[in-house]
Amino acid sequence: MDLKALIREIPDFPKPGILFRDITTLLQSPEGLSFVIEQLVHRFDGQGIDYVAGIESRGFLFGTPLACRLSAGFVPVRKPGKLPAEVHSMSYDLEYGTDALEIHQDALRPQSRVLIVDDLLATGGTAQAAAKLVQKTQAQLVGFAFIIELEDLGGRQKLDSHPVMSLIQY
Amino acid sequence: MDLKALIREIPDFPKPGILFRDITTLLQSPEGLSFVIEQLVHRFDGQGIDYVAGIESRGFLFGTPLACRLSAGFVPVRKPGKLPAEVHSMSYDLEYGTDALEIHQDALRPQSRVLIVDDLLATGGTAQAAAKLVQKTQAQLVGFAFIIELEDLGGRQKLDSHPVMSLIQY
Repeated sequence: MDLKALIREIPDFPKPGILFRDITTLLQSPEGLSFVIEQLVHRFDGQGIDYVAGIESRGFLFGTPLACRLSAGFVPVRKPGKLPAEVHSMSYDLEYGTDALEIHQDALRPQSRVLIVDDLLATGGTAQAAAKLVQKTQAQLVGFAFIIELEDLGGRQKLDSHPVMSLIQY
Repeated sequence: MDLKALIREIPDFPKPGILFRDITTLLQSPEGLSFVIEQLVHRFDGQGIDYVAGIESRGFLFGTPLACRLSAGFVPVRKPGKLPAEVHSMSYDLEYGTDALEIHQDALRPQSRVLIVDDLLATGGTAQAAAKLVQKTQAQLVGFAFIIELEDLGGRQKLDSHPVMSLIQY
């Protein structure tokens, strides 16, 4: 399946000069959505994944169907203040300023095997923060799965101590 | 399966006096997550659902696995400013002030059959706004599915021109 044909390109979003890769046109296609999930399942089935950790909010879209198919649990990695119980927190750098992610302290069993999922790998800062959160829980990070990878931004190099898989590269 | 046993109760979140029903403990259970999705599939399979519309962001968690299982497309209903293409917008009342939701104008085919999914039915304001957005696109609203319903808040009455299904009631 030609997944790139299902990704809509929107110039100057969210700000001038950025070409936004819009996955909503992929999601709205039943064949596209199923194909993407099947590709992820094919890659990670049989690897003993205990939890899929999805990064807010577009990582949620791919994380729960993948978790279901792998008979794994799903754990949300969220923006600050959204998770109600005790959290680990990790800040990361943006182009201007910083942001942070949180995970429940009791979300992952120690030594359990965890796959991090998000829609997009750009600079890798967000995924790297999520990885540090997984490691704070004493769980074992198995790798990363992304739908889209923007190769020129070098995110893969930032994460290269663990396997990185992406379905669509630009 | 006793789903209530998988929901964690957290007092005074997000503010004093609120008892928060935390679904992350349900999501992290492989059996709980699969059971919930199976219940939703059982209820809506064979009803010709073309699209599952999930409300940001916890509605995303249940919407995509359900869409996959129903061979439907998934359409996100998002907070303002998140969707990159042309949108319909709908504001709704909160306890103090207002908020709004958006949907892509081209997200749903006219006359297609759409199911709205969210994690929680409280006062029904959010779901009602999502319903108005679906109707703006000329698609056909089939009904609503929620994981948790807070019955005392009367949300169901606000939505009662369409079928409302919930898995757990308090």
